Amino acid sequence: MLPFRVTARDPATAARAAELETPHGTVHTPAFMPVGTAGSVKGLAAWELDRLAPEMVLANTYHLMLRPGPERLRRLGGLHRMMAWDGPILTDSGGYQVFSLAGRRQLDDDGVTFQSHLDGSRHRLTPESVVELEAGFGVDVAMVLDECLPWPVDRRAAESSMKRSLRWALRGLRRVEVLRREGPWRGGLFAIQQGSVDRELRARCSEGLAEHPFDGFAIGGLAVGEPREVLHEAIAFSAPLLPEERPRYLMGVGYPEDLLHAVACGVDLFDCVLPTRSARTGKVFTSRGELVIKNARFADDDGPLDPDCSCPTCARYCRGALRHLFISREAASVVLLTVHNLSFFLDLMRQARDAIMTRRYAAFRLRTEAGRRAGV
Amino acid sequence: MLPFRVTARDPATAARAAELETPHGTVHTPAFMPVGTAGSVKGLAAWELDRLAPEMVLANTYHLMLRPGPERLRRLGGLHRMMAWDGPILTDSGGYQVFSLAGRRQLDDDGVTFQSHLDGSRHRLTPESVVELEAGFGVDVAMVLDECLPWPVDRRAAESSMKRSLRWALRGLRRVEVLRREGPWRGGLFAIQQGSVDRELRARCSEGLAEHPFDGFAIGGLAVGEPREVLHEAIAFSAPLLPEERPRYLMGVGYPEDLLHAVACGVDLFDCVLPTRSARTGKVFTSRGELVIKNARFADDDGPLDPDCSCPTCARYCRGALRHLFISREAASVVLLTVHNLSFFLDLMRQARDAIMTRRYAAFRLRTEAGRRAGV
Repeated sequence: MLPFRVTARDPATAARAAELETPHGTVHTPAFMPVGTAGSVKGLAAWELDRLAPEMVLANTYHLMLRPGPERLRRLGGLHRMMAWDGPILTDSGGYQVFSLAGRRQLDDDGVTFQSHLDGSRHRLTPESVVELEAGFGVDVAMVLDECLPWPVDRRAAESSMKRSLRWALRGLRRVEVLRREGPWRGGLFAIQQGSVDRELRARCSEGLAEHPFDGFAIGGLAVGEPREVLHEAIAFSAPLLPEERPRYLMGVGYPEDLLHAVACGVDLFDCVLPTRSARTGKVFTSRGELVIKNARFADDDGPLDPDCSCPTCARYCRGALRHLFISREAASVVLLTVHNLSFFLDLMRQARDAIMTRRYAAFRLRTEAGRRAGV
Repeated sequence: MLPFRVTARDPATAARAAELETPHGTVHTPAFMPVGTAGSVKGLAAWELDRLAPEMVLANTYHLMLRPGPERLRRLGGLHRMMAWDGPILTDSGGYQVFSLAGRRQLDDDGVTFQSHLDGSRHRLTPESVVELEAGFGVDVAMVLDECLPWPVDRRAAESSMKRSLRWALRGLRRVEVLRREGPWRGGLFAIQQGSVDRELRARCSEGLAEHPFDGFAIGGLAVGEPREVLHEAIAFSAPLLPEERPRYLMGVGYPEDLLHAVACGVDLFDCVLPTRSARTGKVFTSRGELVIKNARFADDDGPLDPDCSCPTCARYCRGALRHLFISREAASVVLLTVHNLSFFLDLMRQARDAIMTRRYAAFRLRTEAGRRAGV
């Protein structure tokens, strides 16, 4: 199992600082993972990612299995080499994309068959084939195949889906144990807790997973359209159900306030497309809340995006210049906003970690949230 | 006048190495200027440009006057601050864009009126207003307004146009002399030789310009559709017509072989969109000639774009990975190919300069051209 140590606990919340050792380095948590869907964090050269220094990045098994495909990826030297990134990589299992992106899904107890969104070709994923793909990519952390449901969903469907995801998780683990015995791969495997926003289902799922030697446990199936208060409540009861002695990963979440809440509930890892996708639409995260860079009020603004930010974009570009580049559709503007937004999310988690280490997380969270409510 | 020193001459050709001092630093020639049309070299953050370390970059007066416009640019602290680039900047005069991009042109002896390609608004440029705009931007080198003709063009039209460009150049110079007396701007002004591909017209234009204290002289109106042998012949007779003791700048050219030829003819400065625009279509310049990255033959290629290149893209990414990112429409691929293509052009001119300094330019040119003919 990947070594995991909790190094500090906040006295007033369930927040904790920890270290997860992976084949490509130690992940210091709480940590936010930038999303590099198809083998790059959108818009960023590898040296740009180096400078941002995320603890771990996420890539998508679904996208990579379709293009470039596992054989080609192997011929190109594996995922780390293709991404030109030597730090830890976690791959999701493809389950979410199969249920949100692919066409003509056929789900059965053994796995799922679907059509590629790229060319309509037929593909099949099983709990075993998914972990084989991920191990073949050479990732540091693989995720089990799970079924993702929309919100809202009736309890019977949520229960039957949760049970299937649980069975699939255990099948994935059994295959990983074989892979570890027989091959060179030394990455970890995370299970995924499902159960929609039903506490009892989440508890049963956690119980079913917790007794098995997974390297970590994720909270899946949230941030699929539910209101923020429902999301926050679900995080609050789901996180403590997961084993204390292993990393907890909240998948696909979210806004800075969601992360701060989840950290207080004891979550260690996050990923979300929000900072990168927002950059492409000109939405900017700051310590004073969000701003939309193309807004006319920034046209003559010679101040930085965020006076409290130390990223290279804020060090060199004013809002007026960034607005000009964005409305002129200059590709550099997306690079610059991506660097800033990712810096904001990465710094937020670094600051959260520092606050936990000094046992002041609750005050840090209040101060940060108050600053963001103040408005740009 | 901007200080200009020829520091070495190649014994076998007219190639020379020189230094041009500008308010934002010394330009070591021969030098290639990346094009930053609207205030950024497409796809590149300023720190990326820093690392490429071009001697000077070019920006377009036409684009900047329309957006963000001179007043806004001044409020944002000038062009250097908006671009977050502290090195030398040269602006073209907008003449070329007025004749290629704008709508409903009305040319008269005093200037040119045109419609913005962005919103159809009416604008007017005169020889005086152009240099006032450029001085207002705070550029290191301003270009005079000129009229650009297509190729081919009849001699009478070429002659009358050349005479107008000549008159306009002198009007620009007179206004610059006033600007220098009355304001803080300390940039240089380059005149532009016109005359289509007619040697006699080019000679008369040069004579008319040479007696005036321009900081440098450009060869304009080439690379507008003429065959390569016509272009090369025109470069060969046009360059020596320009004053020996001032920098010579060949505008909008071109392929590596064009640059190597022009350097041999005594040209010092170049700009072209070729490396940056080609990156966006997946065309890659290498020491073995050009390659098209989306070609299937590169799908499993784990070698660098160019084994002789020391750019960060070649240091970290293989052709197969770059092809995957390009066909996946990942924005990072354009950044990576732009960095490589610009590195190739910048390195080519650095190597040319080194060869001139060691009096071996002719051999360097032969070797480089033979390598590129060898094929990828």
